[in-house]
Amino acid sequence: MSRYLDMVNMPEHVKKLTPEQLVALASEIRTEIVQVVANNGGHLASNLGVVELTLALHSVFETPKDKFLWDVSHQIYVHKLLTGRKERFATIRRTGGLSGFALRSESEHDCFGAGHAGTALSAALGMAVARDKRGTDENVIAIFGDAALTNGISFEALNNIASSTKKFIAILNDNKWSIDRNVGAIASYLNRLLMRPTFNKLQKEFERWLSKLPDQHANLAKRISTKTGEAFKLAVTSISMRPNETQVAPVFPDDMEDPEVGDTGGKGGSASSSFFEDMGFKYLGPMDGHDIPTLIRALQFAKECDSPIVLHIITTKGKGFEPAMLQPSRFHGTGPYDPTDGHAIKPNKPVPPTWQKVFGDTMYKICQSDKKVVGITAAMPNGTGLDLLERELPDQYIDVGIAEEHAAIFAAGMATMGYHPVVAVYSTFMQRAFDCIMHDAALQRLPVVYCMDRAGLSANDGPTHHGLFDISFLRPLPNMILMTPRNEDEFQDMIYTATRQNLPVAIRYPRGCAEGVDIKETPVLLEIGKGEVIQEWEKNNAPKIALFGLGNMNSMAVQAAEELSLRGYNTAVIDPRFIKPLDEELTLFYGREADLVITIEDHVIKGGYGAAVLEFLNDHDIHTPIVRIGWPDKFVEHASTPDELRSKYGLSVETIFEKVTLHFQKLNKIPERQF
Amino acid sequence: MSRYLDMVNMPEHVKKLTPEQLVALASEIRTEIVQVVANNGGHLASNLGVVELTLALHSVFETPKDKFLWDVSHQIYVHKLLTGRKERFATIRRTGGLSGFALRSESEHDCFGAGHAGTALSAALGMAVARDKRGTDENVIAIFGDAALTNGISFEALNNIASSTKKFIAILNDNKWSIDRNVGAIASYLNRLLMRPTFNKLQKEFERWLSKLPDQHANLAKRISTKTGEAFKLAVTSISMRPNETQVAPVFPDDMEDPEVGDTGGKGGSASSSFFEDMGFKYLGPMDGHDIPTLIRALQFAKECDSPIVLHIITTKGKGFEPAMLQPSRFHGTGPYDPTDGHAIKPNKPVPPTWQKVFGDTMYKICQSDKKVVGITAAMPNGTGLDLLERELPDQYIDVGIAEEHAAIFAAGMATMGYHPVVAVYSTFMQRAFDCIMHDAALQRLPVVYCMDRAGLSANDGPTHHGLFDISFLRPLPNMILMTPRNEDEFQDMIYTATRQNLPVAIRYPRGCAEGVDIKETPVLLEIGKGEVIQEWEKNNAPKIALFGLGNMNSMAVQAAEELSLRGYNTAVIDPRFIKPLDEELTLFYGREADLVITIEDHVIKGGYGAAVLEFLNDHDIHTPIVRIGWPDKFVEHASTPDELRSKYGLSVETIFEKVTLHFQKLNKIPERQF
Repeated sequence: MSRYLDMVNMPEHVKKLTPEQLVALASEIRTEIVQVVANNGGHLASNLGVVELTLALHSVFETPKDKFLWDVSHQIYVHKLLTGRKERFATIRRTGGLSGFALRSESEHDCFGAGHAGTALSAALGMAVARDKRGTDENVIAIFGDAALTNGISFEALNNIASSTKKFIAILNDNKWSIDRNVGAIASYLNRLLMRPTFNKLQKEFERWLSKLPDQHANLAKRISTKTGEAFKLAVTSISMRPNETQVAPVFPDDMEDPEVGDTGGKGGSASSSFFEDMGFKYLGPMDGHDIPTLIRALQFAKECDSPIVLHIITTKGKGFEPAMLQPSRFHGTGPYDPTDGHAIKPNKPVPPTWQKVFGDTMYKICQSDKKVVGITAAMPNGTGLDLLERELPDQYIDVGIAEEHAAIFAAGMATMGYHPVVAVYSTFMQRAFDCIMHDAALQRLPVVYCMDRAGLSANDGPTHHGLFDISFLRPLPNMILMTPRNEDEFQDMIYTATRQNLPVAIRYPRGCAEGVDIKETPVLLEIGKGEVIQEWEKNNAPKIALFGLGNMNSMAVQAAEELSLRGYNTAVIDPRFIKPLDEELTLFYGREADLVITIEDHVIKGGYGAAVLEFLNDHDIHTPIVRIGWPDKFVEHASTPDELRSKYGLSVETIFEKVTLHFQKLNKIPERQF
Repeated sequence: MSRYLDMVNMPEHVKKLTPEQLVALASEIRTEIVQVVANNGGHLASNLGVVELTLALHSVFETPKDKFLWDVSHQIYVHKLLTGRKERFATIRRTGGLSGFALRSESEHDCFGAGHAGTALSAALGMAVARDKRGTDENVIAIFGDAALTNGISFEALNNIASSTKKFIAILNDNKWSIDRNVGAIASYLNRLLMRPTFNKLQKEFERWLSKLPDQHANLAKRISTKTGEAFKLAVTSISMRPNETQVAPVFPDDMEDPEVGDTGGKGGSASSSFFEDMGFKYLGPMDGHDIPTLIRALQFAKECDSPIVLHIITTKGKGFEPAMLQPSRFHGTGPYDPTDGHAIKPNKPVPPTWQKVFGDTMYKICQSDKKVVGITAAMPNGTGLDLLERELPDQYIDVGIAEEHAAIFAAGMATMGYHPVVAVYSTFMQRAFDCIMHDAALQRLPVVYCMDRAGLSANDGPTHHGLFDISFLRPLPNMILMTPRNEDEFQDMIYTATRQNLPVAIRYPRGCAEGVDIKETPVLLEIGKGEVIQEWEKNNAPKIALFGLGNMNSMAVQAAEELSLRGYNTAVIDPRFIKPLDEELTLFYGREADLVITIEDHVIKGGYGAAVLEFLNDHDIHTPIVRIGWPDKFVEHASTPDELRSKYGLSVETIFEKVTLHFQKLNKIPERQF
């Protein structure tokens, strides 16, 4: 049976379909996405949630002339299928394939790339202002989730929009989830909006507009009006209030009864669309984000609107794939699964625990005995492994929403009161908090622990998600302690050690499986600024090489050492543990005695750990040549596995061997091969 | 005549005074501040605005047990006068004297330091949550300006407060100004709040609470109630709407007439306190922030309140000192002035223009001929020098509020549409936008120019304002061009050159006066990655020294070269111009030929320009010793002048000479002195 999807490759094809055909196409698109993500892994639930919205957008607007800005842009799969990339869709997130995010260099239909939350409104406003200045008429549409509203940048943009342009369409895709369930006042406020749709001031204007449409649309108009009411009921019934949402004490005018939620103990929820109206927007909604005719009419209305407008649509994360609807968090970003039942594809052989699992277990262990330690996440309890703490010791667990800056400062505030907060944020997102780490923690010597998850590559996500800069921005900050573990047992010790300091500490560790070593029952306190010698030099006259293998690159250093020993070199391997303070004694000794120093790190070379060693040795008048292995001065693309990228960019035993050979060839000092 | 101020040194003394005495004390405090700031320079207008508020706070609460968190904390002078620092007050912002900001190490009454905007609510929430967890009863009071509300972090915190604690006092000190006049929807919203005080839901509850006070307070209660009404009128009359604020199209319910502003063209401003109520706060205000009894009662009410509360107070920036009331922007942060009339103290001899003046003039020059260039500021038109553009070419000028992240992304959005935005932000505040520069501009190769004003020292402001990290965080970012001028003529060329690139560019330049060289009529295009040799080596056999003097440190390199030449060294001086890309040819040549390389930079040594030279030379197998002169690995305190700090920390000709001597002594190669 032929599919509509086979006939649709570009936006103009979408525009030719009837609403009924679009509904059929939506179903086909869901099947396609469930199938491809089952193979490749990826962001499933959020993409299933925006199928109808994306179809409606392409029915009404004309990309690339009109601009769609997808916040985070992990929900862009449907858009990719409809903008000339259908044939390559099965390659998504794989080596050489489509990116899992918006990418300007991939398609002219991707007008702005993203990967971090909260940027769409700002970038869209930049485009809208540029459009106004040059006097052209592109439509600019920012599509952002309710979670993006917990991020300060979205608010900075909202504050700026109405005073800057009259034409701006903001689509609030409200699904109650960030990556995990949303928290905070805005989430609570949006829930109240759903319960009080009568507060929607623009609804009448919208209905008048509908009524002026040509006659043949009259039935549709009526249908939409009804549908909006239905959407409301649907939305209300699908909301399950969380315990911590009920902690918000809703403020209510004394003289006003709440008709909908009057039985919530005398204090109901005051709801109006005034938040967006206070920001100078018109507001229309909430409406059913899976009803294509409703969406199309609302978008057409918005297109004609002469002031900035927010369309508030309600969608279901994972819509159409039951496992994802039941577990939206697990299917936010997922590995491969069985497309029939959603069960994860288990690896054939047992694998070591992930760094995230070790982090979560260790935090739980530490928090049990030390009530002053708390774990803080920016909307990622599952991603970071803090979900264990959330379940078992909720008093020592805090989720602040997608708000890395607030997380960093909030933790500094707690630290002034004798607490030891541990903030777990992906390395690439910690970039958001750089100023706060400097200004609020480091400058004041406050003992906050910043755990930088996914430091190094996040291979199939690509450059927005690789965590390759954290050493370069944290090492220059005075008072910081900066460390990285070579295996999970050292990691446990580091987390424990970090919570016992009187200074800010940052720990970087990668995504994925750890090394598979045993973890001690009880963590031990590490000495600050002390590394560990993994392999000493032998007593021979061969050229001496000192390999400083940082963190997860230590195992590569050990492999390289084996290889080099076979070739006749005398190799030592050091686990530096600390990037700051450096182990001065160890670095001086090996730096002075070696004929060649090699540093290996899962970080950019510029300003990385190798640079720290080089700076330190130079300042001590030691000028031993240093080969620094790490990521080059370019943004590293996505690929199926980290190993492919490491291999391509020279983070490999082969490259180390080549560089060593080249170095000693120049000096005419190639040793005799040892057997 | 004896003053109350002579009897008041600590909070307990404030508590003993009657309201009438407090009014007298307020006047004395103003006189004291006007006098001291006239000598030392400092933040005048904002401190004059919070005299009554600070007195009321110390009347009601007990620091250090209770916590006052001052956002930015430049308005902390009154608090310092009342917390044991009166005797040292005349030393404020001077070498060895009091800091101009909150400083934990200075006093136990300063519970959280600041200097960047928007952190108080976050840090205060951290303290409140810690208090709740440990079960103690400290009051936590965050005092923030209306300008801080344009910053995303404040919003991230607001979103998080009501769901996290029941005891939290937020004081919105609304004076309509950030450093310049406020912009955006929130400013407009707050204006509408003032015009509609009847929307204040909590007013009745407050009045009931007042009426229950003991009899002797009855008159006071009545008076306050009246006063609140007066505050409203006062506030309304003191508001002068800006042209761009009226651009905000206020959204109004169709069926609602606006009684106050009904003549604004049919569309008035919808005003309620719902913004804060939507955030889960109780809201009380607006009230007169200069009426001590009103403030005291409101604070007492807030203290007893069982949910987070916002007190919205209206203050006048510069209150009590007419020159500052007339020109709050000029007296935000001011240099010395005549305390009788506010006239600036003119220097005795003519001084070169400031870098800021040159920046403003150049932007104006470029914008006249290139309509695609726009200047963007984050609330600092005067500070950055963009006020000229604002006045003369307002179409090419944009103020986004204190929102550095939004500014950086907004600019990237404009750049996708063919514009060349120039974002001027102080180096230390650009730290906020680090992730956005990486994720939105650099990764997408978008031609935004980031101008980092006040790179290097902001001497009397201290560590929150020094801009000493920008090289270390920007150089590792792929696609970035990073430069710094040695004088104002080169600066003009750099700004012009930056606006002609197809990549993101950052330019760092210092606070204060430039070098005093002539500026060409027309800027020229500089070759990217090409430095300039200022002084070649002579043809002699003396030890060769290559001095790479970066930016404003180039003149020190020239002086050092003179000194070293006199001592018999052969010295060359290079102006690198580019930190990235390095001038490879020049660096290779001088790096290879020199016996000693010296780099001098107004930046931390770790990860700075010297590190870039070291990394580059090492990677080219050149191991010439490098002496790197720059700021050490500690936070640098405030002082009266940059020179004092440079001298103390070894950024001086003397230090250069010492280090050179030491180096050649070790080698036993001290040259014969030349005459």
